[in-house]
Amino acid sequence: MAENIILLSHGAGGKLTAELVDKTFLPRYGNETLLRLGDGAVLEELGQGVPVLSTDSYVVNPYFFPGGDIGSLAVYGTVNDLAMCGGRPLALTVAMILEEGIPVADLERICESIGRASERAGVKVVTGDTKVVERGHGDGIYINTSGLAVRSPDCPLDPKRVRPGDRIIVDGPMGQHGAAILGARRDLPLQVEIPSDSRPLVQEVQALLALGDGVKILHDPTRGGLATCLNEIARQSETRIILDETLLPEDPVVTQVCELVGLDPLYLANEGKLVAVVAHDAAEAAVEALLKAGAPSPAVCGEVLPGEPLVVGRSAAGGERILDVLTGDPLPRIC
Amino acid sequence: MAENIILLSHGAGGKLTAELVDKTFLPRYGNETLLRLGDGAVLEELGQGVPVLSTDSYVVNPYFFPGGDIGSLAVYGTVNDLAMCGGRPLALTVAMILEEGIPVADLERICESIGRASERAGVKVVTGDTKVVERGHGDGIYINTSGLAVRSPDCPLDPKRVRPGDRIIVDGPMGQHGAAILGARRDLPLQVEIPSDSRPLVQEVQALLALGDGVKILHDPTRGGLATCLNEIARQSETRIILDETLLPEDPVVTQVCELVGLDPLYLANEGKLVAVVAHDAAEAAVEALLKAGAPSPAVCGEVLPGEPLVVGRSAAGGERILDVLTGDPLPRIC
Repeated sequence: MAENIILLSHGAGGKLTAELVDKTFLPRYGNETLLRLGDGAVLEELGQGVPVLSTDSYVVNPYFFPGGDIGSLAVYGTVNDLAMCGGRPLALTVAMILEEGIPVADLERICESIGRASERAGVKVVTGDTKVVERGHGDGIYINTSGLAVRSPDCPLDPKRVRPGDRIIVDGPMGQHGAAILGARRDLPLQVEIPSDSRPLVQEVQALLALGDGVKILHDPTRGGLATCLNEIARQSETRIILDETLLPEDPVVTQVCELVGLDPLYLANEGKLVAVVAHDAAEAAVEALLKAGAPSPAVCGEVLPGEPLVVGRSAAGGERILDVLTGDPLPRIC
Repeated sequence: MAENIILLSHGAGGKLTAELVDKTFLPRYGNETLLRLGDGAVLEELGQGVPVLSTDSYVVNPYFFPGGDIGSLAVYGTVNDLAMCGGRPLALTVAMILEEGIPVADLERICESIGRASERAGVKVVTGDTKVVERGHGDGIYINTSGLAVRSPDCPLDPKRVRPGDRIIVDGPMGQHGAAILGARRDLPLQVEIPSDSRPLVQEVQALLALGDGVKILHDPTRGGLATCLNEIARQSETRIILDETLLPEDPVVTQVCELVGLDPLYLANEGKLVAVVAHDAAEAAVEALLKAGAPSPAVCGEVLPGEPLVVGRSAAGGERILDVLTGDPLPRIC
């Protein structure tokens, strides 16, 4: 490409848009379907499967951060949302809003990341869109990914199946993505870099679903963190949840950062973690299955109780606190 | 809602996000699927149908304009892309990037428009996402819609089926959307307002597909206008296209605006028009079917010729000109 920055004409739907598609997007995440370049993508029949749709826009600032970038985040984020619904992700759409003036080299790096991430997650980018807004409107790059997955007609995931006595499982330490973005923005007095946990959860979910109907709900604790996510589960399943904070796997660097800046890891975002509600007698098998599927440190850390929807955290000192949903925004634009 | 402007916390995934969903989105375009509010939407099985996916981000400026707004545009735009692939639109996702400080009243008006437009187009909004960026980043509101449609396994649309002798049909005058946006931005010396042509094309497409395999390709001439769209058809079908400009339906106000500002209606965007390539002997029936389905002024206006991909325009004076794809961007951010 002759110019090394993005121009308004790259979004006009004419010559430069075509050049951007041909030289920047297709070589990095092209495939047979995307190559057809129609107004939409015509896919394979789903057969007996049930379609699942999901969408997310990504506005993370900065767009490169330790452990990932807006490209990989946009792929894994939507793939994980589909997986939490019990879907096997098939196809992604990638729509970009670029700010006039950003370096084409940045866009190329992000597109490479989209290519690698979609390969790792086992999903194809089948169609896309590019808009360019004037300098000063936007913030470098915003990406929307939407995805189509297929789930089995007898998928067991249903909040109505949650019962008192069910166990809460998380698959690793909380707050790494939020802490990574915080570290990328501020000059924290730390000796080490904090990488985001951004990664695909498709294999973990498939491993859990293979266990049968002992698995009741899956959620990924992204914006709002684990505390907000558990509240969502309590609300959907109309149960009370008790979280034993002493049983949560811990990342000592995240704990240290949170103490430094006065944030709670339970409210920090994750981009490669899941929460599962499983039957009491399926909990051990679920932890083993997660471990085999590559989860960092799966652990049972809570229980479902009868009662009005509410989330209670129990600390090492034996104290209890009500964990409400996030209010305010301690850390905007983390995804 | 106590506040009457959008705050960063509306995008944090916590209390205010939930309030925005409950009070602003659900009453205006809610339905049973959207009400479930999971990480994604689980839909009905498609059966024998072939899934079609499409995505578009909308950054139109201003976000209210004569004949529509960013909400209806985002619904019709994606629905029309799906229809051009031969798909019957089933489900839409709506993802918003809001700028801190925009009036909630504007958002409510846009959501009402999304509700009305999706009802008119016969499609449901099944899942969504909201992000908020700091004041000065973004431009009020950007919307991404992605859509899932189902198309018949024996859909006849295929650029490889285009043959010399096929006819080019448009369903109404060109350039109304581009002219409407231009009029909304500049103080033009006109006595009348120019409304955008933004509308759903689903019924016209279904009427054409009912004619059988005489219909070869459908396209909507959005960004880049009819000229760029015909080039796309010529490229995909590896044919030459001759456009008889004297046969094109005309909107005299658009012609007047174009003369005033020095633009060509053939390069202005449309948001409620289609171009069809049909077999010679199907042309008359296609025009009739379009008219019955509500097309403003369908007309045969061109022909497919053998030869290298190229688009030639023939004017009233008998002269010929090569109509290349759009270069540069005479009118940025029209959609």
